[in-house]
Amino acid sequence: MTLPMVVPQEGLPSRVRIHEVGARDGLQNEKATVPTEVKAEFIHRLADAGLTTIEATSFVHPKWVPQLADAEQLFPRLADVKADLPVLVPNERGLERALALGATRVAVFASASESFAKANLNRTLDEALAMFEPTVARAKEAGVHVRGYLSMCFGDPWEGPVPVPQVVQVCRALLDMGCDELSLGDTIGVATAGHVRALLTALNEAGIPTQALGVHFHDTYGQALANTYAALQHGVTTVDSSAGGLGGCPFAKSATGNLATEDLVWMLQGLGIDTGVDLDRLVATSEWMADHLGRPSPSRTVRALSHKEQ
Amino acid sequence: MTLPMVVPQEGLPSRVRIHEVGARDGLQNEKATVPTEVKAEFIHRLADAGLTTIEATSFVHPKWVPQLADAEQLFPRLADVKADLPVLVPNERGLERALALGATRVAVFASASESFAKANLNRTLDEALAMFEPTVARAKEAGVHVRGYLSMCFGDPWEGPVPVPQVVQVCRALLDMGCDELSLGDTIGVATAGHVRALLTALNEAGIPTQALGVHFHDTYGQALANTYAALQHGVTTVDSSAGGLGGCPFAKSATGNLATEDLVWMLQGLGIDTGVDLDRLVATSEWMADHLGRPSPSRTVRALSHKEQ
Repeated sequence: MTLPMVVPQEGLPSRVRIHEVGARDGLQNEKATVPTEVKAEFIHRLADAGLTTIEATSFVHPKWVPQLADAEQLFPRLADVKADLPVLVPNERGLERALALGATRVAVFASASESFAKANLNRTLDEALAMFEPTVARAKEAGVHVRGYLSMCFGDPWEGPVPVPQVVQVCRALLDMGCDELSLGDTIGVATAGHVRALLTALNEAGIPTQALGVHFHDTYGQALANTYAALQHGVTTVDSSAGGLGGCPFAKSATGNLATEDLVWMLQGLGIDTGVDLDRLVATSEWMADHLGRPSPSRTVRALSHKEQ
Repeated sequence: MTLPMVVPQEGLPSRVRIHEVGARDGLQNEKATVPTEVKAEFIHRLADAGLTTIEATSFVHPKWVPQLADAEQLFPRLADVKADLPVLVPNERGLERALALGATRVAVFASASESFAKANLNRTLDEALAMFEPTVARAKEAGVHVRGYLSMCFGDPWEGPVPVPQVVQVCRALLDMGCDELSLGDTIGVATAGHVRALLTALNEAGIPTQALGVHFHDTYGQALANTYAALQHGVTTVDSSAGGLGGCPFAKSATGNLATEDLVWMLQGLGIDTGVDLDRLVATSEWMADHLGRPSPSRTVRALSHKEQ
C-alpha cells in the first residue's frame, strides 16, 4: 500500500491521540439507521485498526436521535473491545443509563454560542451551561472521566463569528464544573488556521493548559486538516475525527463534514507522529461501513487507497 | 454570503498570488471537451472574479491533449482579459505557435523523477531536462516570462518518495536554463507538511530564493490545503489552484484532485491575506462551469456557498 514519506517537523508532538467519533457523531448524522450488530462490529474493527479512544454511542432520548436508540443493546456487546469507549450523555437521565451499563468515560455536549442557547434551549448561555452542572457533578461523584464538547467555538449559523473571549469563558466554566478535557468544535466549519491559533493562545493565557484541549474540525469549507495542523503546531495532542469521514455527505449543502480519520492519519504518519493506527485496516473498515451505508466514503484517502476497483 | 472571520497570523505573507490553473490543467483532465466559446467566457469570468494569473491553454500537439486542441482559436479571444495569461508549451514548436499569437508568459513542464523520465520519455533525468533547454532559451530570447513546472517533487507512482536533493538539483537546472519561476508539483498528492517544509528549506540552502517558488498541491489524500499552509509559513507567496477543483473527479480513484481555488481563498481570507479575489463571483463561475461539465464541483467551499438548492 502507498504510504507517505516520513519527514518529521521540529516542534510538533511525537504522539497524537485520535478521538474517533464515527460510531457516534458519524452515525447519528447518517440518514440510515445501522443495525446494532453492524455497529458492534464497526467498533471492534476500529479498535483492531489501532484506535484507542472510540466514542461508542449516545444515551440521548431515542426520540431525538433514533439512529442511536440502541445504546442499551450496543454497549454490552463492546465489553471485550480494547479501547476507551466514551459515550455521550445529554443529561442526568442519560448519565444514569450509561453508568448502569458500566461506562467509565462520558461526554456532555455544550455550546459556546449565545444564539445557539437561545434558539435551541430558549436560555441564556449561562443558563444553558448551568444545565450541565448536575450531570458533571454526578459523573465525577461516580468516578468517571468527563469530556466536555463545546460546539460553535468559531462561528454559528445565527450570529456569525463567536468572540474568542466568550469561548474562553465557557471553557473555564466547563473545567470549573469538573470536566477532565474539552473538545473545541468548529461545528459549521468556518474556522481558519489563524483563528485556531488565536483561540488556543487565549485559552492558555486564561490559564487553561493545552493538554486539557482537543480539537474537532469540520470540512465544510475544506479547512479541517489545515486547522488541525495549526493546532498541532500549538501543541495539541488530542484530535477528533471520523472514520471514513462518516457524518458528512459529500454532496449535501448541509454536510457536517467531519474530518476523516484516514486523511488525518495520512498527515500524522507523514509528520512521523505516532497514532498507533494501521491505515490499511482502517481504510478496509471504512470501505466495509460505506457498503452498509450504500454510498462511497467522502474521505479522499479512503478513495485513493481503496481496495476496490472504481 | 458567509465569510470566514479574519484572524491574521504573524509571520505569514500579506499577499498571495494565485496561479489559476483550472482552464488549462483542469480542463485538460476533464473527460468532456469544452467548446472554445465556453472556455473564453470562463477565463473572462475568472478575471472578473479578481484572479490575476490565469493559465489559459496549452500549445501541445492536439493529438496528445484533444481537450485543448483549440488553443489557436481560444487565445485571440482573450485579448481584452485583464490578467496575465500564461500558456503551456511542451517544446519549441508549441512555443513558436504561442509566440505567433502574442503570448508573453509561457510554461514548460518538467519532472523531478528519474522513473518518470524513464517511463514517459525513455531518457535519464538529465537527458529529459536537456530537452527543455532550446525551448527556454528561445523563450528568453523572445523576452517572455518562463515558468517551469516541476512534477513529482514529493513522490511518483514508480519509485515512491523522490529524494529532496534530486528535486533541488532539477530546480537548479531549470533556473540555470533561464526559468523565471518554478512551480513545485505534488502530482500524486502524497506530500505532507513536514516534507513540504524540508524541501523548501533545502532549496533555500542551495541558494534558491523562496520568491522564485510556487507550490502546486493535489488533494489525492486530502493534504493540499494543509501543505499550502505549511508553504505559506515558509514564506511562499505563489500558490497554484484550480477554480472549483477542476481536473479532479471526486469519486474516481485516479483523481488528480487539484486544490480548489475557493477552498484556498477561504483560508487566505480568514488569515487576512490579500488575493484580490471576490469569492462569491468565483463560486458563481465554478457553478456555471460545473453545469457545463454536468457534474458538481468537488470544492467543498463551492458546495457550501452554492447559490442553488441541493
